[in-house]
Amino acid sequence: LQKIAFIVSYDGTNYYGFQRQSELPTIQSELERALSEIAQEPIAVVGSGRTDAGVHAYGQVVHFQTRLKIPAEKWPLAIKNYLPEDIVVRAAYQVKSQFHARYDAVGKIYQYRIDRGLVPNVFQRRYAYHVPYPIDLNLIGQAIPYLEGTHDFTAFCASGSAVENHVRTIYRIGMREEEEQLLFTFHGNGFLYNMVRIMVGTLIAVGNGKIPAEEIPRILASKDRNLAGPTAPAHGLTLMKVEYPMSIFA
Amino acid sequence: LQKIAFIVSYDGTNYYGFQRQSELPTIQSELERALSEIAQEPIAVVGSGRTDAGVHAYGQVVHFQTRLKIPAEKWPLAIKNYLPEDIVVRAAYQVKSQFHARYDAVGKIYQYRIDRGLVPNVFQRRYAYHVPYPIDLNLIGQAIPYLEGTHDFTAFCASGSAVENHVRTIYRIGMREEEEQLLFTFHGNGFLYNMVRIMVGTLIAVGNGKIPAEEIPRILASKDRNLAGPTAPAHGLTLMKVEYPMSIFA
Repeated sequence: LQKIAFIVSYDGTNYYGFQRQSELPTIQSELERALSEIAQEPIAVVGSGRTDAGVHAYGQVVHFQTRLKIPAEKWPLAIKNYLPEDIVVRAAYQVKSQFHARYDAVGKIYQYRIDRGLVPNVFQRRYAYHVPYPIDLNLIGQAIPYLEGTHDFTAFCASGSAVENHVRTIYRIGMREEEEQLLFTFHGNGFLYNMVRIMVGTLIAVGNGKIPAEEIPRILASKDRNLAGPTAPAHGLTLMKVEYPMSIFA
Repeated sequence: LQKIAFIVSYDGTNYYGFQRQSELPTIQSELERALSEIAQEPIAVVGSGRTDAGVHAYGQVVHFQTRLKIPAEKWPLAIKNYLPEDIVVRAAYQVKSQFHARYDAVGKIYQYRIDRGLVPNVFQRRYAYHVPYPIDLNLIGQAIPYLEGTHDFTAFCASGSAVENHVRTIYRIGMREEEEQLLFTFHGNGFLYNMVRIMVGTLIAVGNGKIPAEEIPRILASKDRNLAGPTAPAHGLTLMKVEYPMSIFA
C-alpha cells in the first residue's frame, strides 16, 4: 500500500466547500470519485483542513492510500481527465505511511483578494471581493501588527466551531497592491473557522474608519465575536500553501 | 443628442462574440438591451470591431447616441445593474458628434495568454490556452521580427473575410513570461479576421520546431493560409486597448 499526497488547486465557485456532504458537490467528493474510478475500489482522501463553500485553493494538500503502483510524478496527468476542469492536481508525492495531511500541517498561507476598482474587474469577479468605497491603507497598516503574534482568536472565530483551543499564532500578515487590487496574505500555524474572513472584514472596517486600529487588542481580549468586523465573503479567499516538516517524504 | 463612448470589459466565455446575432447572446445585444432599458427607447451601439466567440476584452470601445442627460462619468455605475456580471463598463466619455468607434480607431492592442504548466492553472482556465509541451522561446524570439512591420497578411487571415486590403502594420509584438504563463502582446494599426490567433498558432509552431523562424517571410509572401500555423483557440485572446486620436473628446 502506497501513501500519496496531492497538492490540489481548485476554483471553489461551484462547490459546497472541501468536505464531503451527501448529494452536494464538494472538492473531497470529486477527488474521491476520480480516485475510486481509477483504482476500481473506494478510496477516501483526507485534506489538510476544510475550506468553506466558495473558497478557492491554489495549494490544498490531501493524502490517500492506494494499491495502485502509479509513480507519484505521473498522478497529476493520470487523474486529469477524471476531474472537472475546476479541480487540478498540481503535484503528487509519495509520503511516509504515517503522514497525515491534517495532523502534520505546521503552517498555512491564505490570500485574500480585494478589488478596489470603481466597477469590478470581470476577470477577477469570482476571485476578488469588490470594495469600491475608500479604504485607508495606512490605518490598516497600523492594525496589522496587533493581529500578528500569538493570541486567543475567539473574537475572530465564527460561533459553532467545535474547536476548544482558540489560541493561534500568526507569523505575518502581508498587504500589497497590484494594480487596482489589494492582496492580503496570512501566514499562521493554523486558523479557526472563518478566522481569515473575519480578520479581513475587521481590517476593512479599520480602513474605512469604523473600527479604530488601536481597538484590535481590546477586541482580542474581549473574546466577543460581535466586537470584530463582519465576515468578508468567501470568494475573495484562497488557500495558497500548507506547510509540513521536510521529513514527510517517503 | 449626446454621443457617448464606453470602454467595455467582458469575459467572452459565455457569448457568441461581440456582434449582434438574432436570438444568440452577444456583447453588443447585451449592451443595447441595457441601454434601451435605461433610455426607454431603442439604442444601437457601434463597436471598434468584432471579437469572435469566446474572445475577451479589457478595453473594447463602443459608441452610441442618446437623449439621456446622464453625465459621462456617471455611466459606469448607472448601467452596472442592467448588465450581466461578465460585462462591465469601465469608463465613459462624451465624444464629438462625428466620433466613430470603428472608423476613428488608429491602433489596437491584443494580448494572448498561454499557460505552460504541466496541468492547467484553474484560475486562468478560461483566459489562457494550455500548452503543456515544450516551446523554445528563443526560436519564437527569432520569428517575431519577421511579423513586425508592414506586410500583406493574407496568409494570416481566415478565408471568408470580406476585407479586400490585407496590408496591415504591426508596430510591435511583445513576449514575456509571468510565472508559468507566456504573454504575447500585439500592437498594430488593425488586424484581419483571426489574424492574431493565426500569428500565435504560427509562433507556437515555430517554438516547437514545426515551422523554421526563417520561413515566416516566405509564408507572408505566399499569401497562402495553409502555410501558416493553426488558429490558436479563442479563449486565450483579449482585446486590451483601442487607440484613437486625442481630438475625439467633446
